[in-house]
Amino acid sequence: MRNVINVSVSPKGTLETLSQIEVQQLSAAGSGSTYRLFRQCALAILNTGVQIDNAKAILEAYEDFDVRIHQQERGVRLELINAPADAFVDGEMIASTREMLFSALRDVVYTESELGSPRIDLTNSQGITDYVFHLLRNARTLQPGLEPKMVVCWGGHSINTEEYKYTKKVGHELGLRSLDICTGCGPGVMKGPMKGAAIAHAKQRINNGRYLGLTEPGIIAAEAPNPIVNELVILPDIEKRLEAFVRVGHGIIIFPGGVGTAEEFLYLLGILLHPDNQSLPFPVVLTGPKSAEAYLHQLHAFVGATLGDQAQQRYEVIIDDPAAVARAMAQGLREVTDFRRAHNDAYHFNWLLKIEEGFQLPFDPTHANMASLQLRRDLPAHELAANLRRAFSGIVAGNVKDKGIRRIEKHGVYEIHGDESITEPLGKLLEAFVAQHRMKLPGAAEYVPCYRVVA
Amino acid sequence: MRNVINVSVSPKGTLETLSQIEVQQLSAAGSGSTYRLFRQCALAILNTGVQIDNAKAILEAYEDFDVRIHQQERGVRLELINAPADAFVDGEMIASTREMLFSALRDVVYTESELGSPRIDLTNSQGITDYVFHLLRNARTLQPGLEPKMVVCWGGHSINTEEYKYTKKVGHELGLRSLDICTGCGPGVMKGPMKGAAIAHAKQRINNGRYLGLTEPGIIAAEAPNPIVNELVILPDIEKRLEAFVRVGHGIIIFPGGVGTAEEFLYLLGILLHPDNQSLPFPVVLTGPKSAEAYLHQLHAFVGATLGDQAQQRYEVIIDDPAAVARAMAQGLREVTDFRRAHNDAYHFNWLLKIEEGFQLPFDPTHANMASLQLRRDLPAHELAANLRRAFSGIVAGNVKDKGIRRIEKHGVYEIHGDESITEPLGKLLEAFVAQHRMKLPGAAEYVPCYRVVA
Amino acid sequence: MRNVINVSVSPKGTLETLSQIEVQQLSAAGSGSTYRLFRQCALAILNTGVQIDNAKAILEAYEDFDVRIHQQERGVRLELINAPADAFVDGEMIASTREMLFSALRDVVYTESELGSPRIDLTNSQGITDYVFHLLRNARTLQPGLEPKMVVCWGGHSINTEEYKYTKKVGHELGLRSLDICTGCGPGVMKGPMKGAAIAHAKQRINNGRYLGLTEPGIIAAEAPNPIVNELVILPDIEKRLEAFVRVGHGIIIFPGGVGTAEEFLYLLGILLHPDNQSLPFPVVLTGPKSAEAYLHQLHAFVGATLGDQAQQRYEVIIDDPAAVARAMAQGLREVTDFRRAHNDAYHFNWLLKIEEGFQLPFDPTHANMASLQLRRDLPAHELAANLRRAFSGIVAGNVKDKGIRRIEKHGVYEIHGDESITEPLGKLLEAFVAQHRMKLPGAAEYVPCYRVVA
Amino acid sequence: MRNVINVSVSPKGTLETLSQIEVQQLSAAGSGSTYRLFRQCALAILNTGVQIDNAKAILEAYEDFDVRIHQQERGVRLELINAPADAFVDGEMIASTREMLFSALRDVVYTESELGSPRIDLTNSQGITDYVFHLLRNARTLQPGLEPKMVVCWGGHSINTEEYKYTKKVGHELGLRSLDICTGCGPGVMKGPMKGAAIAHAKQRINNGRYLGLTEPGIIAAEAPNPIVNELVILPDIEKRLEAFVRVGHGIIIFPGGVGTAEEFLYLLGILLHPDNQSLPFPVVLTGPKSAEAYLHQLHAFVGATLGDQAQQRYEVIIDDPAAVARAMAQGLREVTDFRRAHNDAYHFNWLLKIEEGFQLPFDPTHANMASLQLRRDLPAHELAANLRRAFSGIVAGNVKDKGIRRIEKHGVYEIHGDESITEPLGKLLEAFVAQHRMKLPGAAEYVPCYRVVA
Repeated sequence: MRNVINVSVSPKGTLETLSQIEVQQLSAAGSGSTYRLFRQCALAILNTGVQIDNAKAILEAYEDFDVRIHQQERGVRLELINAPADAFVDGEMIASTREMLFSALRDVVYTESELGSPRIDLTNSQGITDYVFHLLRNARTLQPGLEPKMVVCWGGHSINTEEYKYTKKVGHELGLRSLDICTGCGPGVMKGPMKGAAIAHAKQRINNGRYLGLTEPGIIAAEAPNPIVNELVILPDIEKRLEAFVRVGHGIIIFPGGVGTAEEFLYLLGILLHPDNQSLPFPVVLTGPKSAEAYLHQLHAFVGATLGDQAQQRYEVIIDDPAAVARAMAQGLREVTDFRRAHNDAYHFNWLLKIEEGFQLPFDPTHANMASLQLRRDLPAHELAANLRRAFSGIVAGNVKDKGIRRIEKHGVYEIHGDESITEPLGKLLEAFVAQHRMKLPGAAEYVPCYRVVA
Repeated sequence: MRNVINVSVSPKGTLETLSQIEVQQLSAAGSGSTYRLFRQCALAILNTGVQIDNAKAILEAYEDFDVRIHQQERGVRLELINAPADAFVDGEMIASTREMLFSALRDVVYTESELGSPRIDLTNSQGITDYVFHLLRNARTLQPGLEPKMVVCWGGHSINTEEYKYTKKVGHELGLRSLDICTGCGPGVMKGPMKGAAIAHAKQRINNGRYLGLTEPGIIAAEAPNPIVNELVILPDIEKRLEAFVRVGHGIIIFPGGVGTAEEFLYLLGILLHPDNQSLPFPVVLTGPKSAEAYLHQLHAFVGATLGDQAQQRYEVIIDDPAAVARAMAQGLREVTDFRRAHNDAYHFNWLLKIEEGFQLPFDPTHANMASLQLRRDLPAHELAANLRRAFSGIVAGNVKDKGIRRIEKHGVYEIHGDESITEPLGKLLEAFVAQHRMKLPGAAEYVPCYRVVA
Repeated sequence: MRNVINVSVSPKGTLETLSQIEVQQLSAAGSGSTYRLFRQCALAILNTGVQIDNAKAILEAYEDFDVRIHQQERGVRLELINAPADAFVDGEMIASTREMLFSALRDVVYTESELGSPRIDLTNSQGITDYVFHLLRNARTLQPGLEPKMVVCWGGHSINTEEYKYTKKVGHELGLRSLDICTGCGPGVMKGPMKGAAIAHAKQRINNGRYLGLTEPGIIAAEAPNPIVNELVILPDIEKRLEAFVRVGHGIIIFPGGVGTAEEFLYLLGILLHPDNQSLPFPVVLTGPKSAEAYLHQLHAFVGATLGDQAQQRYEVIIDDPAAVARAMAQGLREVTDFRRAHNDAYHFNWLLKIEEGFQLPFDPTHANMASLQLRRDLPAHELAANLRRAFSGIVAGNVKDKGIRRIEKHGVYEIHGDESITEPLGKLLEAFVAQHRMKLPGAAEYVPCYRVVA
Repeated sequence: MRNVINVSVSPKGTLETLSQIEVQQLSAAGSGSTYRLFRQCALAILNTGVQIDNAKAILEAYEDFDVRIHQQERGVRLELINAPADAFVDGEMIASTREMLFSALRDVVYTESELGSPRIDLTNSQGITDYVFHLLRNARTLQPGLEPKMVVCWGGHSINTEEYKYTKKVGHELGLRSLDICTGCGPGVMKGPMKGAAIAHAKQRINNGRYLGLTEPGIIAAEAPNPIVNELVILPDIEKRLEAFVRVGHGIIIFPGGVGTAEEFLYLLGILLHPDNQSLPFPVVLTGPKSAEAYLHQLHAFVGATLGDQAQQRYEVIIDDPAAVARAMAQGLREVTDFRRAHNDAYHFNWLLKIEEGFQLPFDPTHANMASLQLRRDLPAHELAANLRRAFSGIVAGNVKDKGIRRIEKHGVYEIHGDESITEPLGKLLEAFVAQHRMKLPGAAEYVPCYRVVA
């Protein structure tokens, strides 16, 4: 049975204040969109720790959930009605959940109030980057006093126990070296490294360790933030979130995952292969436990076969050795530090990283767009990477997103064309994902591909 | 001889970060206005502790002063060229000066970037209040965790030694009662209470005492912030600054001063006499040492004669008794606390205080505007107070402001008309100010009035 | 292979300073005993996280280990020669290990310097309690500002995985309720609750959670402190350590363990059954996972059969319900808080708890002493509990302690006499321990009893 | 009229806990001496800020003052009966006063409990130094993390306004350079530098500035600690206090004062002139405002005439230049820092400073002892300095101490003999003190010398 609770919470330790106009906007009677967005994020946050990763199911299970905002003498107070009871201990809200509620409030209000500001120009690359900067600064994520030590961990949110334990061990080794963790803030790979680092930080007497979660409204519901997260930022959409990862993170570790992880990996390679980024240090490690060795080698081989040697040289593959991963990352961060100092680039925001508009603007996976993707040998590697990323993005959509599934139902599978030297390894990689159940959707009996790779 | 220094400073402890666009705007080559405004504020801040209170003289003395902003790994760095050497100890900048420079940077950048935002509507009262709120929130002045204890001290910036010592004693008694101080942040009454409170806070082991300085670009140059100020906010103009005082302060103490202080006093009375504010607690104390007794009684009598009993009841007059002043203020603050809690009004911002547009919009003291001021018995008290405030404001302009002085030179003295029962006490008060040298400009041989009061 | 390292460490964050005389005493050339004791503790601490729980084996494996102390400008520096490499990450000592080294230094120096002080009188109960107080105060364990929330967890240091996971879950639930953990500071039950609480404290944004480890020189080597411990106190002997547990802890949870845990449980019951302690609240919970249910019920039945109902009423048995355990403990602590406030007893030290000398002085398990233990029905319950505790203490010695083993080899097994209504359940309990492998020593093929229970 | 108050206070922020035995000792019924000593110190502390510097007068004015100590749940509570009301603001005790009461409690209890410890050997120089170290460590005065920056300020406690203002300015310049202040913790020179430094620390955003007061039971009553003091240590007697000054202070500034200040100056020179201390850096500055120039030059000339050039080279004379004093001190501290680091001597305790027993043991100024003082040219300078210090010490006793005054009444004035080349400048110096009213006792009509200098 669904367990609900009615409760009133005030911020504690956070210092969020709202103007009367902002409070009005957030009220159900105000601009409906702000209210709806905040309600959705609040519900997702309250579901923390729950295993259902289906946004729709959660929203339906708590359709009488309501959140009301009140101004009071010490700032604002949130009144929660029919809230999921899981985030409460003996009727009291867990502190991290409370903090996250007010982080969501902060981000939703700010995003809304900035809309239409003449300062923000989302039509060009610099404008988009500037906007991401403002969102992160408002969330106090940009802390100029700190040396580079924010390690992003990417990978699947539903991985097996062995892989999960491995991410914890890697997090522990990172934490022992005083490094911080940034993830997409849900379960699985998004939680393991934070948990490991939290214990390691306790051993190292670090009590200001950072566990940064970057999410967006569409993702948060399916991947509720784990309660170790002590800085939560809700970016407005997927592309802003990806840019936030690479601007704020100083290095990236890629753990096993599904086709979504492959998409993120190619996004990263596409950026790092840009000629302007050639001499920019950015440590990347591809790693997993012994049992994931085959998977990792296949991914590595695919990169070699399609993007070539130079792409493989932008990352290191380390199998089953958490300490080696952490040492490689620590070494890479020292190079990042030296580079930023030498080039007067901020520790807290990677201004010098060139990101082309192609990576900042959303890709719409229509059948036509998928069919016309250029997967050609003669393209510059970073352009090919961008297109491969779009291909994976389309498959993710065809697998799990409403719009994508409907398109497949209507028009049949996507056709992906290209030079045989690219489509052949791509086809193999996708088959392997299927064989390893990395494509299989939770609950589905057998995976039916939504694509066809054509030479 | 003018003593200058070239130096480079980074923020320390403050966490200001700027985007690349903001850095560009601040560079001399960028939008000139932002740069000029920041240069002017920076120069004023560096002049802290210096006795010249003549903005123009300072600007001219350091016309080769330059400030350049650089992005670097830990945030921004300011390069100061030909800077006044007074804010340095053995070549190192005093920490409070450094902090204030970065506060100015923060406020100038924010004010600039907000201009033109669709969120801001300066054409109506609520919009102006909202704007003041945003400026203060961005400066982190609004701390929702704190109980009401911010005491505003108003009075002259060039007072005599006895009056200065008295403000220190009052500040000491306020500090012993754990109260914070807010002033216009210059010398004289703006410094004395802070200095007294700083010592008292040390005795009470309070190491987060607040010394809030509210200023604006036109004032800061003439009244450089004293180095006790540990929170500096530069509001965009005089009216926003006055509103900030009454929204953020929980009580106000008025020390002896000149015609400017009288203007502030009438601004305050005008607001408090508004029918909507009738039941709103707002402690006000008029105080000074024994030697200022005559002055204070005259001011008090003037309020009685023009605005009546009810106006006199909004404040208390206490002569030569610092402990009694502090006790009265502490008592008043308890009532403010109770009221805000009962009415769910924020401790950190006085939303419920009604301020009419007439107090928020600038008054332009042309001869026509001055001549047509309604100083009539039959006006509601708060409107009469508003008009009296405008009369004082005009006299201040005619005494010391460029534009006002030129107007007087061209058109002769201002004529102020009104019912005799008002103009008669007004004339007497102004004469007394002249007699007590409260009108006399520094350096001027004898005061020549810029006005004529006509029945 | 044994991995060693030479390194030099200074305290960081701790403020231990030593006099020249103290430094001399600690040098190998000084009073040998202080040096030897400190070397032994230091070696044990450096072995943290290692699985060998054999003090002798460790000491022999690192017989060329040496520790030298140097005075320097910022206090003392320790030079470690041929130190076990496990407590180091990339050549740098883990912060918690460093802290513990200096805690050991503090305790060894203090214990030594107090010897012979006229203030200390170890011949009577009050004197012993006073001594324990001074040791804990010097270690800064007594923090008068804190409400009662220190939960002692007792149980085996080598338990099975399921039991270990259960202790983690209980620790997590305690931590979610803002409670602190105190254990004997080794592995197993001494680590699980701390790890669980550390994660829960992170979720509750508590960054001053206490993980207090109480040990003594004989135990620390076999049960090296786990690195979560953030307060380590080395008491001079077992009895002082037991007294420290019940004076500093506000409630106690007993997890499954062996005969040593039974000894501790009877020590506790013996004290709580003293008539003077009758109305003193002291929450005790006996708990374990489903798989330990039989064990716990047997222990509970044994208490009923020998000490009766009133003994059973001093604790609660909770099977497989971590949240219920934490709730019971939280409720019990509220009663402790009320009681201490009502009786003006310190939150930080349980002065009112009556402990008789019999519990404070060591019991020497000679064959004669064991044979003459009074296990009689007609004894007051607290005296019978004391004698049963001695019986268990003797068995522990006969099982694992050098002296005890030699005695058994020489004189045969201990004989334990008593009323049949006591010896019969005692015999059964011990048999059950054997059957459940709770007696079996690590590595031993089969357990051969060192005792014989005689009606 | 005497204003008294009855009140109960608990420590706040300090973590003092007492054992039951310690509480008993402090009760009036316990060991009377501990109680009486604590009562006397408590009364002195409560008199803070009061102008009477007559210990006897204070004790008599409040002879019905009583202090009772109670154990309670959060530690101890002090009940004060008929306490002087000056340390209270609106019935609440000033935080610094409360802190000092508990500091006194800590020191009185510790001194008492250490008496008779076999660790303490007061019969030799090393033992005495060790004891001073233990007293300071227990008071947490020894903070090993800090670089040398503790500046001792010596001088008169009743100086004129100009001299007082000068000490404030010097303190301000020291504080601007992040230096801390240590004084005898009463009024006058003991307060001025602290007040100046407190304001300067506020400007430099230093909120852990140290204002260390070292006193002893005989002095505290006459020179109640000023409330800026945030670390108070009550040493058991004058010699321990003097040793504490030179072991804990990193440099010393000597302001104008009376014959007591001269005594301290000679104590310091006597130590610094010891051959073992020849290469030990120890910055000393003799300074005062313009009006004190004659006095300072006379003292300087006296040192030259008696102890010679080498004595004069151990200090610098700076007239009327606070910034120069602070710069000289800062430079000297850098040398101290380098020296300690090079010699592995603790920053927090000057172990390498050689102090002979002659300076550690009290000098009893009987007429015989005074008459037999060796003031001979052929003595080593440090011995001559020691004897001159004894001569001044005797004069202080004869001027103001009960015992000394009675001796003079009975036996006539002291006779001081010596080589003419010493007695002649000594006589002159003393005459100058008389002429400048530096001998004159408060209230006394005219100074009648208690000594006669004989060639």
